[in-house]
Amino acid sequence: MSTLARPLVRLIEAFEKLPGIGPKSAQRLTFYLLHVPQVEIEKFAEALINLKKNTVECSTCFNVSETNPCSICEDTSRDQSVICVVEQPIDILSLERTGKYRGVYHVLHGALNPLANVGPDEIRIAQLLTRLKNTGIKEIILATNLSMEGESTAMYIQKQISNRNTVKISRIAHGLPMGADLEYADEMTLSQALEGRREY
Amino acid sequence: MSTLARPLVRLIEAFEKLPGIGPKSAQRLTFYLLHVPQVEIEKFAEALINLKKNTVECSTCFNVSETNPCSICEDTSRDQSVICVVEQPIDILSLERTGKYRGVYHVLHGALNPLANVGPDEIRIAQLLTRLKNTGIKEIILATNLSMEGESTAMYIQKQISNRNTVKISRIAHGLPMGADLEYADEMTLSQALEGRREY
Repeated sequence: MSTLARPLVRLIEAFEKLPGIGPKSAQRLTFYLLHVPQVEIEKFAEALINLKKNTVECSTCFNVSETNPCSICEDTSRDQSVICVVEQPIDILSLERTGKYRGVYHVLHGALNPLANVGPDEIRIAQLLTRLKNTGIKEIILATNLSMEGESTAMYIQKQISNRNTVKISRIAHGLPMGADLEYADEMTLSQALEGRREY
Repeated sequence: MSTLARPLVRLIEAFEKLPGIGPKSAQRLTFYLLHVPQVEIEKFAEALINLKKNTVECSTCFNVSETNPCSICEDTSRDQSVICVVEQPIDILSLERTGKYRGVYHVLHGALNPLANVGPDEIRIAQLLTRLKNTGIKEIILATNLSMEGESTAMYIQKQISNRNTVKISRIAHGLPMGADLEYADEMTLSQALEGRREY
């Protein structure tokens, strides 16, 4: 890299730090940007700088937002008595895209993971329990990932809530994804799809 | 996306404009950056802004450089009588990585492509011919890509030079790449590998 101009090296190194971008992609992106007008590059840089400067965490649901409370918590047309619990803000994006959900959210900002020293106090579980005390919540939908960490987080929260509240608690469904072939489904997924079968 | 904070939307849109980054990757990168310290994000933004501000094109070889002439054209330990012609500055990076080349370069900044309205005047061919007039060049290595555009660019340059000069002109070798299986090689590559065979 000795023959490569330092401004290029610096940008390649910055891109390499991003997840899923290796050395080759970082180079390609950097050399691509050489052909992009400076004004466009500066817009990109500004969007980066303002990402965290112009956003806050909603103090109710902990989603990333421009306002506090966030637009979802403030929306009176949404059902404030149903809370969907997710691991990350990006999960809200996926759920909103379905257009099927009209309740509110609670972002844990992580999942229980003893190996990475993430216990109940490291994620926003206490804040969820506090929300349950104060308001007329009717249902909690646990929509953490279907990974080991997500499952144990859902189980932990389910126990914590059922010890203290009579609120309805549900877990998003396990089963075969759209377009799946039974032939290629793993046993766990298939047995969960059987268990979770619904009557027509 | 209506529920997504605008600073996030803006950065997602900026990432989406980059080659090879789709909507999903752009979202993932943006939400990832929410967890990165602001000082790191600002370093990234600075590297972006300075990419073109702190670089120039070498007026001899048209490589991207901090200085003019660039470090390669100025390097007296390199053989200034051999010019390797490439399409893009990034190609120099690949060639330098081999450690086998000690001559200098000429960056065309493109390849002939009549369908995209790129003719000989749109790339730095005239400047290459001027370089040949002025100095004691002994060899030109045509290292444009082995694509249709790269091949026709190499052929065009070869004709232009051989009409006027007696300089040695070569083309980088066609053949099978390292580790290739004959079974899976396409006919063009295989016939070129046969044609270009070398005696032991």
